[in-house]
Amino acid sequence: MKFQEGDVYKYTFTVSDKTYLEFIQLSQDQNPLHTNKDFAISKGFEDVVMHGNILNAFLSYFIGECLPAKNVIIHSQEIQFKNPVYMNNDLQFHAEVTGAFESVMAVEFKFNFKNAASKIVAKGKIQIGLLK
Amino acid sequence: MKFQEGDVYKYTFTVSDKTYLEFIQLSQDQNPLHTNKDFAISKGFEDVVMHGNILNAFLSYFIGECLPAKNVIIHSQEIQFKNPVYMNNDLQFHAEVTGAFESVMAVEFKFNFKNAASKIVAKGKIQIGLLK
Repeated sequence: MKFQEGDVYKYTFTVSDKTYLEFIQLSQDQNPLHTNKDFAISKGFEDVVMHGNILNAFLSYFIGECLPAKNVIIHSQEIQFKNPVYMNNDLQFHAEVTGAFESVMAVEFKFNFKNAASKIVAKGKIQIGLLK
Repeated sequence: MKFQEGDVYKYTFTVSDKTYLEFIQLSQDQNPLHTNKDFAISKGFEDVVMHGNILNAFLSYFIGECLPAKNVIIHSQEIQFKNPVYMNNDLQFHAEVTGAFESVMAVEFKFNFKNAASKIVAKGKIQIGLLK
């Protein structure tokens, strides 16, 4: 098996304006928190807040493209959003294998995303299956 | 408060080829399960499998655009993928308010997505906060 408990993966993901606009195009989510700076500031934020589900698209890339096996499928995901992400924030992504179960062909990861101030902006778990 | 336990929301979301291509553009996830029909069939699927995180983009739209309040932010999400979604599948989305907590300005939903055969393809929970 190509996965072992304790394996660590690290990447940097940037929420560029391109990523932001592509996510709006995809999702059609134009909630004012994401699109109206005055609204976002009135709610206590510095600027418009990037959609949390952009990070879930990064997780898709992580699972689909960054692992030592391609025969993978996501079984479940959970994510908690802890702090806002703003345009052009560079996010340090850290994932660790917390379980690798060869008998049932499943692997579990814990992950987090940190901003430039080393604050966790989101964290969660993913469970994947390995396809025979 | 504009939310009450038992409130139900229903929509239809379609994973069109446009949605699929936009998600690949956004995520850069070109795992063969999603892009190579022969590979997908060799793993027991009917065709290339749509990325599960496309459904998370639909959830972004649901929370950002479909609720009776715009001052919302996602606190946490979890999703389990139960059956494959294929290109052009129409998915029936059903969400229900399972908790509405005015004192802490939080609302919880359970949701599922069903395909045309009424099979659940994904289900999960979302917790949102209401911004003052």
